[in-house]
Amino acid sequence: MIKAKIIVKLKNTILDPQGKTIQHALETLGYKEIESLRSGKFFEINLNMDSEEKAKSIVDEICRKILSNPVTEEYQFTVEKITKL
Amino acid sequence: MIKAKIIVKLKNTILDPQGKTIQHALETLGYKEIESLRSGKFFEINLNMDSEEKAKSIVDEICRKILSNPVTEEYQFTVEKITKL
Repeated sequence: MIKAKIIVKLKNTILDPQGKTIQHALETLGYKEIESLRSGKFFEINLNMDSEEKAKSIVDEICRKILSNPVTEEYQFTVEKITKL
Repeated sequence: MIKAKIIVKLKNTILDPQGKTIQHALETLGYKEIESLRSGKFFEINLNMDSEEKAKSIVDEICRKILSNPVTEEYQFTVEKITKL
């Protein structure tokens, strides 16, 4: 079995109002050290297969076509073989 | 400057309807290899400080108190020193 961990986030040039709101809330609460905060999405997929190469190609396709909007977002992922419990 | 990358996800025992919906959509689209899909949140924070140890303690506090709901969610994070451009 393969476990894929995917992060989808807004491109750096795109404004992130949700992140800005959290950042301001944290500043109000006294966390003055925060320079910037960006929010994004996380997905964890378990795939019934053993080939990391094939999994990478499928996960990349799923990220590109379904999980992210290529106009405003970028994604990155890792795959690793795991033992099914 | 310190960059923290944070993942907040539902505990494994908590149902994830959003993840299930995406999983079923992917199955409908022909991705039959998917065993499970869980969704979560991702945050990237830049902190104006140099001590990784101090940053870890602040980020842990922010995760525990603000970014996650400890009843239903769990979090993990990494911190790394980066050079400000």
